[in-house]
Amino acid sequence: MPVPGGAKGAGPTVAMVPDGDDRERLVCTDCGYVRYDNPKLIVGAVCTWEDRYLLVRRAIPPREGHWCLPSGFMELGESTEDGAAREVWEEACARVEITDLLALYNLAHISQVHLVYRARMLSPEYAAGPESHEVALIGWDDLPWNDLAYPNVAWALRQHRAMRGRANFAPLGIPADADHPV
Amino acid sequence: MPVPGGAKGAGPTVAMVPDGDDRERLVCTDCGYVRYDNPKLIVGAVCTWEDRYLLVRRAIPPREGHWCLPSGFMELGESTEDGAAREVWEEACARVEITDLLALYNLAHISQVHLVYRARMLSPEYAAGPESHEVALIGWDDLPWNDLAYPNVAWALRQHRAMRGRANFAPLGIPADADHPV
Repeated sequence: MPVPGGAKGAGPTVAMVPDGDDRERLVCTDCGYVRYDNPKLIVGAVCTWEDRYLLVRRAIPPREGHWCLPSGFMELGESTEDGAAREVWEEACARVEITDLLALYNLAHISQVHLVYRARMLSPEYAAGPESHEVALIGWDDLPWNDLAYPNVAWALRQHRAMRGRANFAPLGIPADADHPV
Repeated sequence: MPVPGGAKGAGPTVAMVPDGDDRERLVCTDCGYVRYDNPKLIVGAVCTWEDRYLLVRRAIPPREGHWCLPSGFMELGESTEDGAAREVWEEACARVEITDLLALYNLAHISQVHLVYRARMLSPEYAAGPESHEVALIGWDDLPWNDLAYPNVAWALRQHRAMRGRANFAPLGIPADADHPV
């Protein structure tokens, strides 16, 4: 067994089915450590001020230059709501109150689960964070439908619109008529 | 740069803040690979046949010997609903139709997000899978409240009961009066 702080083993580099398991994992053959790769949670929010929507124009790949909802990978030690509010703060420098869960999108082909919350901006203040070229509050008729970063941005905006004035509904999923490949 | 298949580097073993990031990640100093650890999704279901609830008695740690809902870590390449149905099949050998999302519990202190679905058993057939000592369909008055594996099993059972006959509601969270530490 390697001594902590001493010579290091190879780490979890060998693909094998651990005892009692039924699928391949990366295993360290020195110490038996099993690395489990699981789906990632992406948390974000449709944030509004009056009847305008908060969008960020991405300054980083993928889809750099395109408009997106504030969103990103959930981090260790936070709740889904806190993660969504953190992403809004990091990307759009806006303070929000997360109100409820608008949608849950399973993107199984890339092992992602997206949770999109509704959020109310606490003031109309915002600014571009380091991962955004610009941030804007945009009315429905002016939304950049042809320049969105991902299909799920359009899904969430349309579903947010459809749920105006409604509360306490089951989170929506991928629209049945989604016209983009997921 | 190491040659693929040739001598291996140390892997992501050094904790540092990558460029453009704001928190420590494990980085490989040979190739620059960054390992992101993110919260895990646990998917499960409250499954019913008529007015009885499907519980499994755990045959593996942690909480071996205690009663639980069929649930487990979501796997790569599946949806949350498919993952919940897979866990029911693996642990209780029961076929179910996942109907809707009952609850989302954030256990931020252990970086877990639990999604608990409601599910309808397609038949009253079940059996213990390799991770279960036994499986049972149990009426409300006979549920083993003092022998449940985790507080969230009780939360989900009580919330399932409270939502009988209701559809299309926002997923519930940790009960405000949860009397166990989360």
